[in-house]
Amino acid sequence: MNFRNILIIFIFLWNIFYKIPVCPAFQPKIPLSETSEECLSCHRLYSPGIFSDWKKSRHAGMTIQKALQRPENERRISLNSLNSANDKGRVAVGCAECHTINPTSHKDTFQHNGYEVHIVVSPADCACCHPKETAQYTNNNKMAHAYGNLYNNSFFNTLRKTLGAPKWIQSRLPEKISSSASTEMDICYGCHGTHVKVLGMKEIETPVKRIKVPLLSGWPNIGVGRVNPDNSVGSCTSCHSRHAFSIATARQPYVCRRCHHGTKAPAWGVYEESKHGQLYFSQINECNFEAVPWQLGKDFHVPNCAICHSSLIKDPAGAVLIERTHGYSERLWTRLFGLIYSHAQPILPNTSFIRNQDGQPLPITFKGEPADRFLISANEQLSRKSNMKNLCLACHSTQWVLNHFNHSEKIISYVDEAVKAGTELIQQSWKAGEASPANPFDEPLETLWLEQWLYCANSIRYASAMAGTPDYVNSKNSWPELTKSLQLLQKYINKKKAP
Amino acid sequence: MNFRNILIIFIFLWNIFYKIPVCPAFQPKIPLSETSEECLSCHRLYSPGIFSDWKKSRHAGMTIQKALQRPENERRISLNSLNSANDKGRVAVGCAECHTINPTSHKDTFQHNGYEVHIVVSPADCACCHPKETAQYTNNNKMAHAYGNLYNNSFFNTLRKTLGAPKWIQSRLPEKISSSASTEMDICYGCHGTHVKVLGMKEIETPVKRIKVPLLSGWPNIGVGRVNPDNSVGSCTSCHSRHAFSIATARQPYVCRRCHHGTKAPAWGVYEESKHGQLYFSQINECNFEAVPWQLGKDFHVPNCAICHSSLIKDPAGAVLIERTHGYSERLWTRLFGLIYSHAQPILPNTSFIRNQDGQPLPITFKGEPADRFLISANEQLSRKSNMKNLCLACHSTQWVLNHFNHSEKIISYVDEAVKAGTELIQQSWKAGEASPANPFDEPLETLWLEQWLYCANSIRYASAMAGTPDYVNSKNSWPELTKSLQLLQKYINKKKAP
Amino acid sequence: MNFRNILIIFIFLWNIFYKIPVCPAFQPKIPLSETSEECLSCHRLYSPGIFSDWKKSRHAGMTIQKALQRPENERRISLNSLNSANDKGRVAVGCAECHTINPTSHKDTFQHNGYEVHIVVSPADCACCHPKETAQYTNNNKMAHAYGNLYNNSFFNTLRKTLGAPKWIQSRLPEKISSSASTEMDICYGCHGTHVKVLGMKEIETPVKRIKVPLLSGWPNIGVGRVNPDNSVGSCTSCHSRHAFSIATARQPYVCRRCHHGTKAPAWGVYEESKHGQLYFSQINECNFEAVPWQLGKDFHVPNCAICHSSLIKDPAGAVLIERTHGYSERLWTRLFGLIYSHAQPILPNTSFIRNQDGQPLPITFKGEPADRFLISANEQLSRKSNMKNLCLACHSTQWVLNHFNHSEKIISYVDEAVKAGTELIQQSWKAGEASPANPFDEPLETLWLEQWLYCANSIRYASAMAGTPDYVNSKNSWPELTKSLQLLQKYINKKKAP
Repeated sequence: MNFRNILIIFIFLWNIFYKIPVCPAFQPKIPLSETSEECLSCHRLYSPGIFSDWKKSRHAGMTIQKALQRPENERRISLNSLNSANDKGRVAVGCAECHTINPTSHKDTFQHNGYEVHIVVSPADCACCHPKETAQYTNNNKMAHAYGNLYNNSFFNTLRKTLGAPKWIQSRLPEKISSSASTEMDICYGCHGTHVKVLGMKEIETPVKRIKVPLLSGWPNIGVGRVNPDNSVGSCTSCHSRHAFSIATARQPYVCRRCHHGTKAPAWGVYEESKHGQLYFSQINECNFEAVPWQLGKDFHVPNCAICHSSLIKDPAGAVLIERTHGYSERLWTRLFGLIYSHAQPILPNTSFIRNQDGQPLPITFKGEPADRFLISANEQLSRKSNMKNLCLACHSTQWVLNHFNHSEKIISYVDEAVKAGTELIQQSWKAGEASPANPFDEPLETLWLEQWLYCANSIRYASAMAGTPDYVNSKNSWPELTKSLQLLQKYINKKKAP
Repeated sequence: MNFRNILIIFIFLWNIFYKIPVCPAFQPKIPLSETSEECLSCHRLYSPGIFSDWKKSRHAGMTIQKALQRPENERRISLNSLNSANDKGRVAVGCAECHTINPTSHKDTFQHNGYEVHIVVSPADCACCHPKETAQYTNNNKMAHAYGNLYNNSFFNTLRKTLGAPKWIQSRLPEKISSSASTEMDICYGCHGTHVKVLGMKEIETPVKRIKVPLLSGWPNIGVGRVNPDNSVGSCTSCHSRHAFSIATARQPYVCRRCHHGTKAPAWGVYEESKHGQLYFSQINECNFEAVPWQLGKDFHVPNCAICHSSLIKDPAGAVLIERTHGYSERLWTRLFGLIYSHAQPILPNTSFIRNQDGQPLPITFKGEPADRFLISANEQLSRKSNMKNLCLACHSTQWVLNHFNHSEKIISYVDEAVKAGTELIQQSWKAGEASPANPFDEPLETLWLEQWLYCANSIRYASAMAGTPDYVNSKNSWPELTKSLQLLQKYINKKKAP
Repeated sequence: MNFRNILIIFIFLWNIFYKIPVCPAFQPKIPLSETSEECLSCHRLYSPGIFSDWKKSRHAGMTIQKALQRPENERRISLNSLNSANDKGRVAVGCAECHTINPTSHKDTFQHNGYEVHIVVSPADCACCHPKETAQYTNNNKMAHAYGNLYNNSFFNTLRKTLGAPKWIQSRLPEKISSSASTEMDICYGCHGTHVKVLGMKEIETPVKRIKVPLLSGWPNIGVGRVNPDNSVGSCTSCHSRHAFSIATARQPYVCRRCHHGTKAPAWGVYEESKHGQLYFSQINECNFEAVPWQLGKDFHVPNCAICHSSLIKDPAGAVLIERTHGYSERLWTRLFGLIYSHAQPILPNTSFIRNQDGQPLPITFKGEPADRFLISANEQLSRKSNMKNLCLACHSTQWVLNHFNHSEKIISYVDEAVKAGTELIQQSWKAGEASPANPFDEPLETLWLEQWLYCANSIRYASAMAGTPDYVNSKNSWPELTKSLQLLQKYINKKKAP
């Protein structure tokens, strides 16, 4: 046992018995619960990044009681009153308040220095103070169901297995073997979220001592539809990064970029090069990302993801321009990306139950017929579009907005038609036996088709809908690439057909 | 008629008759014209984003009279004195000052609450206070002519129609049909600018009431060469984004990024990863983007697009390092991008009249012979190069600059040679009937050639000229891709030639 | 002789004889050496960007003597005491202090107004005040040896010549000719650094007069492994950009982006879209990039390149979390990029001496056997990994870190296996005479193999190791592209094999 270990044990015992930390004193402005104080007695030494992140957070400087005294529209919590479950209302929101709540529902709860602690803080835990946001996210946001919407959909499950399969590793030749949990975790569940499971208990060596903790699979993960050990879905830290849980971070587009980026979902790229992005990046230092409510003209002059898709926005006169929502579909009528063709938004966020007229787990057939009973009505589409239009009108004239929407809808319909041509070609090749539809994603011909809708069509639809235009419609997986891909597909099929 | 509509009408009438807005009072620091006040009585309620953007603008806090009292080199206006046309010299530059000026020249002028208002504020309108900038931009900047330079050039017009044509949508098979106005608007005119035309009058539903407005095609659009309903060319808001018209926004590279970005014109990407970009992004918070004149060492220490290509720059001692210009070619001698080979800058910004020795509307033949009489002379090239060199010398030693220019010129000549090889190959294939030159862009072989000069050669030229080097010459549509493309082109042609 | 030239000569003579500059007075806070004062008498007029950059630098506001009075852990210099070589300890670090030091060792020293000045300030010059940093960089950082590690390695030298060769320019058909120094300078040595050589003396025209200076080849260049005219290796200004030499610039990720960017080394891209990047970009304005030592929780809350790979970091209690190093391998155990397979870090930064069991200048054979005697031991790997783990633990729980490392190692091994399949295929084609291994990079088949390891495998390894996941493993030169490339390679070879 070397000197460092002796020192660590000494500090540990000192902390336990005297509760006088060895390191410089920390005087919280808001009293901590006794349990959180005990957590911090060690963790401020051994998890200094977590501690200092939390220390600057609103959680560290606020109690539920105090928060409830703020005018309703300035609150960041959505519970209405303290109740018996909120007996911690007089203390700061510290380690214990989140990591020991709802202990019995958490399969990842374990005994830690006499406390029942769980590892994965879930939306169900956050709901203690943020019930509305959790309910909106869980019940009205496809993102919360992103794990199941992929895993429980046989079409996309095949895509997942195909993209995620390092097929060749057995014989060193490209062969079909089952995909790897690790690659799938990177490829799909990095964004969609993993199913975090408790595999049992495991002893691990921490900087302090060896402890037994629940061994988790699918962890760490910050995917938006993570299935948590308490069976709740979602991960608030996808956007409200732990342990500062800063609203300013969640309101900046960087959190969205992590997933809405790149070839498949180029929202970030389109935004970045749009006039909206120009304004944002050149005036970012004039914005107050902390204010609640968030007031146009006072707190910000520029558009970004949160403003258009989620936040409560007040106009300069103090009137509500649009209400806050964590169910992002509420401001969306058409679904533009991820699927073969655009279509009306699904009614429910869990889309794995959708079956189209051909029995496929898709909201639209290969011919383009929508599975109407699973999708929102024309009226609901109009109503959502009207909400978004009102927001656009804050900064744009009526004709500007109308023309933009008309233009964008035309482009989207052209792209859908183009993709239909590709779908028809790949179906011809399936009929002719040139490729097998058993797995529609694993042959070079099929890759062309996949790229047509998953890359090119997504780019063009996004670019047009977000007024981003140039680059993502003329050179970055867009019209020229779509044309090229269709030419290749047709050429290949014609060659095969030749006698 | 529901409650909301009644409320809106009440507010509207109240505003009209009492001119006492319902929403909190707005006390402008600078008196508004009566007309602008009446605009704002409604629009600060119904266009809160536009209003608050304008409110923080210099336009809202300044009169022409006051602006003229500033020392000449601190002025942001370039008219020399108030004249009869400037009777509004004592009021702020409000809505009416821009949207009701020159009513008869604007085909988009319409009657709006008793005023003759036009929708599209044009460079000819801005010229009232900014005549020099408008003249420079219009008469000496190819960007102002970007619409016609594309539309009136049969070579590039074919490219436009080919890239913009969703050819397949008729029969669901790739077929040649005419291109779509909507896709062209996204693909080409998003950057180049549209020709905005008045199609007639149309009744639209605004948040206040139904009104009749001129129905515009090609609108909204912020392309740099937009042809406006008053026949002026250009769009000042491409860079000076409405309605703040902030010089700080125009001086940051984000406005340039929108078009000079991506595969075709990767100036942004090259800058971003260059030493210049490093300095800019890491010291951005130390820069004062508002100061006029803009002084090296005091206001900024870092290079960016505006500094090198447009702004008036003073040295630390207060002497002019380089004069302001809105004719960006003034600091450019060679034209590096968009054309097949590099060549001397054209004499006139309207390039659609250029014809080379082979009668093509190109400044250089396929063999590389420049159409000298349309291009600036060797002396003029030297003079412009010398201007730019002087600016470089502010931060670099003489040998540094000389070596950089020599190096860059070598690279550009190598790339031109490489592209010539590709042109020769594609010409061989046209002669052999393997492809048809009728449309030089619509066959897979031709796509290879197009990508060689429009993507790869552009990348390498830019990267070298802007001292950006690594990424854009070694892996991002650059030397390796150019080599690969030439190999493919040659292989394909040889295969066809084989007996 | 025109008026401008007369004026310049007048100013020049005035400066020389009266030492009273014509332009406004510059009163340095710290006295300058007489020599530096004389430099500035001209150069503050003729190099205003360099002057103003330097003026705001710590070099201009500090003397060695004063710096030594600071507590050791707040110092930015690493010499321990003034010695006879530091007789300039009482003056600011001006032009002369760096550009006239060690004159005899510099082949680029020349007579300039009576002084022996050299052009290229080298790490050996910086070592006068920063000996530890220079030693760490030179002796324990592969980057310092990046020129030789490329130039003296026959495998990579062939790659260099192949990528850098504008092969076609002779006959206008793709032909093998020797590569061009200019293109190589852009493609490879832009990042790796050039070998700067003195070709002789040359008269050049400066803004003041004609002077004779050493003509340098390979200059300008800011590559990390530049070989300098004094035979030292490296370029401190790659990160500590001249002439401000700001620690704040060096600590921001933009300096790393210049080279660790794009297809080959996508560290920037992976970081940018990771949770680490989200935190950085959304909280950048809350960071103090100047503080030494750099304290977690006080000066920054977010991770970036410098924090994890280089800087001295203190925890909130003031204890050292990790020591500063300019030998970045000290925190790295596995080498992930640039080579065919991942492997243990090399023992020495000069890797050109490495020979594997097959005699290749590679740290690992095509079959995947590591050249153990040139690579760090398993114990050393564990020790370095443990250093990095300790840093991770500041912000992450023990299980988080363990699971992340395990996951990442699995992914890296899968990718290595996938690349092995590609290597086996290309070896088969070499045996079958379908391609020639004489140059393993110049045929289309070989390009597929190259892209598999240099582009795709690098992306996936980086994305996984840096917890960046989604985009760089699922669509940006990653698993799907790797699969596609392997399928193409196999298909091509099988076709050739068919009777």
